[in-house]
Amino acid sequence: MSLKIKSFESVVKKYKTIFFDAYGVLKNHKGLIPGINQTFQFLAENNIDYFILTNDASRSPSELADYYQKAGLHEVTEFKLISSGMLAREYLRLKVKSGTIAYLGTDKSAHYIEALGLKTISIQKLDLSKIDDITAVVFLDDEGFDWNHDINKVLNLLRRRTIPAIVCNTDKSYPVSKEEVAIAIGGISKMVEEIVDKKFIRFGKPDAQMFVYAYEHALNNGQLVDKGDILMVGDTLATDILGGNKFGLDTALVLTGNTLPDRASFYIQATGIIPNYVCESAVIQ
Amino acid sequence: MSLKIKSFESVVKKYKTIFFDAYGVLKNHKGLIPGINQTFQFLAENNIDYFILTNDASRSPSELADYYQKAGLHEVTEFKLISSGMLAREYLRLKVKSGTIAYLGTDKSAHYIEALGLKTISIQKLDLSKIDDITAVVFLDDEGFDWNHDINKVLNLLRRRTIPAIVCNTDKSYPVSKEEVAIAIGGISKMVEEIVDKKFIRFGKPDAQMFVYAYEHALNNGQLVDKGDILMVGDTLATDILGGNKFGLDTALVLTGNTLPDRASFYIQATGIIPNYVCESAVIQ
Amino acid sequence: MSLKIKSFESVVKKYKTIFFDAYGVLKNHKGLIPGINQTFQFLAENNIDYFILTNDASRSPSELADYYQKAGLHEVTEFKLISSGMLAREYLRLKVKSGTIAYLGTDKSAHYIEALGLKTISIQKLDLSKIDDITAVVFLDDEGFDWNHDINKVLNLLRRRTIPAIVCNTDKSYPVSKEEVAIAIGGISKMVEEIVDKKFIRFGKPDAQMFVYAYEHALNNGQLVDKGDILMVGDTLATDILGGNKFGLDTALVLTGNTLPDRASFYIQATGIIPNYVCESAVIQ
Amino acid sequence: MSLKIKSFESVVKKYKTIFFDAYGVLKNHKGLIPGINQTFQFLAENNIDYFILTNDASRSPSELADYYQKAGLHEVTEFKLISSGMLAREYLRLKVKSGTIAYLGTDKSAHYIEALGLKTISIQKLDLSKIDDITAVVFLDDEGFDWNHDINKVLNLLRRRTIPAIVCNTDKSYPVSKEEVAIAIGGISKMVEEIVDKKFIRFGKPDAQMFVYAYEHALNNGQLVDKGDILMVGDTLATDILGGNKFGLDTALVLTGNTLPDRASFYIQATGIIPNYVCESAVIQ
Repeated sequence: MSLKIKSFESVVKKYKTIFFDAYGVLKNHKGLIPGINQTFQFLAENNIDYFILTNDASRSPSELADYYQKAGLHEVTEFKLISSGMLAREYLRLKVKSGTIAYLGTDKSAHYIEALGLKTISIQKLDLSKIDDITAVVFLDDEGFDWNHDINKVLNLLRRRTIPAIVCNTDKSYPVSKEEVAIAIGGISKMVEEIVDKKFIRFGKPDAQMFVYAYEHALNNGQLVDKGDILMVGDTLATDILGGNKFGLDTALVLTGNTLPDRASFYIQATGIIPNYVCESAVIQ
Repeated sequence: MSLKIKSFESVVKKYKTIFFDAYGVLKNHKGLIPGINQTFQFLAENNIDYFILTNDASRSPSELADYYQKAGLHEVTEFKLISSGMLAREYLRLKVKSGTIAYLGTDKSAHYIEALGLKTISIQKLDLSKIDDITAVVFLDDEGFDWNHDINKVLNLLRRRTIPAIVCNTDKSYPVSKEEVAIAIGGISKMVEEIVDKKFIRFGKPDAQMFVYAYEHALNNGQLVDKGDILMVGDTLATDILGGNKFGLDTALVLTGNTLPDRASFYIQATGIIPNYVCESAVIQ
Repeated sequence: MSLKIKSFESVVKKYKTIFFDAYGVLKNHKGLIPGINQTFQFLAENNIDYFILTNDASRSPSELADYYQKAGLHEVTEFKLISSGMLAREYLRLKVKSGTIAYLGTDKSAHYIEALGLKTISIQKLDLSKIDDITAVVFLDDEGFDWNHDINKVLNLLRRRTIPAIVCNTDKSYPVSKEEVAIAIGGISKMVEEIVDKKFIRFGKPDAQMFVYAYEHALNNGQLVDKGDILMVGDTLATDILGGNKFGLDTALVLTGNTLPDRASFYIQATGIIPNYVCESAVIQ
Repeated sequence: MSLKIKSFESVVKKYKTIFFDAYGVLKNHKGLIPGINQTFQFLAENNIDYFILTNDASRSPSELADYYQKAGLHEVTEFKLISSGMLAREYLRLKVKSGTIAYLGTDKSAHYIEALGLKTISIQKLDLSKIDDITAVVFLDDEGFDWNHDINKVLNLLRRRTIPAIVCNTDKSYPVSKEEVAIAIGGISKMVEEIVDKKFIRFGKPDAQMFVYAYEHALNNGQLVDKGDILMVGDTLATDILGGNKFGLDTALVLTGNTLPDRASFYIQATGIIPNYVCESAVIQ
């Protein structure tokens, strides 16, 4: 299979709304991908709407927006950002109405949950002999916990209490530099899930719920947009492209992140996850 | 954990809309569950809306509605029925716009797809030397195919062509009598998926998309309904309850199907999938 | 990683005993691989012992030997052949001492089991209302059963009776021509195993037991052979090479079967399954 | 299914050799199981041989033997102990002949590997820019590493180098008190394996290799013992009993460890892993 590479401009023009993945598409470990601001200018000039769908739940939407604005993308406001953390938070709002929520992560991330009016306690401070009040466990998407100690504690909590366990990010690892990755909460929570042998509730692409949430945002934005008018742009076949395809969107794979240019054709064939388009990057020159 | 059993009437009264699973809740291998018509009467009298969410994609919504009407539930119209087949069909409408769709199943089920205006061919009639025009494979949710011959054919088709494979029902088996089950398309397609080692696109509970579709139906029905006002009623923890919970709905487990009364408490603890309520049945006397 | 290809002759000379995989190494869908007889001549001349380890359990060792002898490899006797079926048979001999064994497959394959003195019945003839005497189920490695009917029957038998289920071949598919494969008993039994959610007992590479059996054969052959003196030759990384490595043998990958020459380097890197040598074929010219 | 409980004495008398699991059978978090010394007296008096098969690779056989001797079981010598660590060590001896072995764990455990004459380096001290000499990674079965830091390092090492990764214990967790467990190297290595998506080499029950090793020990002990004369005694269906059954041994489940008395019958039915006998404990009074 030889791969036809399309110019991103020619592709994007056919749609009314663009869903972007963040990491590997708009930014990488060094910061914004050079020239990506021109893409947002093009979208504005051509009256094309957009949203950013990210499995990054380590920061609130307003903090995520801050990042883009400081980097010079002033149009990226809180409203434009859909994170798996928002889904986890929505779950807690709807399903956990009393008791205390134990969390694995930093106090800063937990603040986001506390805003719901629920009591929270970090796993670190939890006394395993006083757990009757705990009504849910949340695996937050950042560090700030003691691996050796806190992960065992969450394991034992879940062996004793039949309560929901919520995971804010499905990614198993994340890039920390051009060459290195680190284990992410998606990987850790999967290990705990297998050991306790219970079903955790995980939020993030490729799950449909992420796309639904973004789609509802797009509709609320006033435009009556059909699924056929939306393009999902991502760098990862198994999350962005698979999820976008299943939700009924057209999809474009860009080669600036997880999928290396010389491997793209092979991976598409091997996985059977087929984007509508392949573009070098999401940059419009 | 001792299980508190609630009367279905007392539970149902708290909600504006009920989502029912079909098999094991409203009907079983013998037909409608005795007394279930009273439940629908109660819903009508109390102005409670409802939808039926089923992984049964072997028949079109209108045929499914026929079944309920002939059995005496005249209020169950096509509009009330949400099947995984509808999602598969929606996927095909949005994502497959040319070529021929190969299908595993009966001509009757395929008719449902043909209504989209797409060319179709049964795997049985497919000539493996002429497959350049095939743009998707659909695993339909019924029999009517030659196991020994057609499954090998679909396997070889998917080894040669990089095209999407769509599965209309995630269930791995289905009950054929009180004691016996049969392998369903969810099981067969999983076997083929593992052998070709590609990612298939599967529709059905517990996937969020099923619940989204039903939720949109509920909204279109005119009532402004919040997720907190919807109750999902099912007999299976891993599909109905897990899916309902994750989507943010309250959930009620009934003991007339897959989950036996003396096992319910154990399975809830073992799986960590926790319904808001447990009721003996969905029958209101 | 660039792949160093070694001549098979230079590799083989370093070892006292060679373990060969059959399909893809010694033969393919057309028959013996051209020139392979010279390899056996070389082994004889250099006093190198050998055994053939195959996941093919559809025929008895004596029938397997017949195949090689008719094809002109007169030195391949029954004693030289180790099949996963022999392990399954050994299991039955040791562990099932009474009752009737139900089997999925042809009467001919079953004959092999009957030689143990156990009563057998084909799933086809089994009456599901008379199953109290059934003490084991065997998934034989051949066809001769009705997919649609018999597989459902074995599924329901295993739901009712807590008895061991033995699988004679782990392979999920097998080649039927240069381009086409067919689903094998390893795939079918895996599907049934997942649906009944019990643990089956599976025999075949890469499982250590296969290699142990061959190793014991080699020892019984009179030669005092150390594991370090044995080379495993195979065409499949995930069975032959992984199993050989784990058992402590040196391993050689040949490129005449499952692993295509232009993919070998990539697959070794991707899987982390590393043969000591890569050779074009097992033919010595 | 009602469970027939047999006296351990009546069972044990039928065999020439007993294979014991250690944790949950001979000892628990408090030390030796009270009365177990009488069992060893009985074995000696009746000329029944025995071996202890343990997935505990955190100590060398001689250190493990020390434990039993200090606790008063003077007959348990190094020769009687078969650990998964011995298999891992055997693998390294046979398959890794040059370079440096990187390990996750304490220097004390590594000493065990160094005795092979191989160079070793702890992951902690490894410089990721100097890894050309690393020829294998070993996940040792103890702690002594920095979770947060060293696990990421091993992950990045395995992304860059195509080298074998060996795991010394398959257990995913281990008990630290009556109520609490901790994550074990089997769980951590599984997480890393899934993230790098390569095949690791894992040693421990239920894998056949563990039983082979013990069986060879039994043979070397001078007695000509048939598999039918060996009884495997364990507290865990999925490792001890499954592994013993598959290897062709008779098996006895004891209820002093992982399998609770009131759950035994249910788990046997649910898993289809069937011991020949169920005994309250391995104690002979």
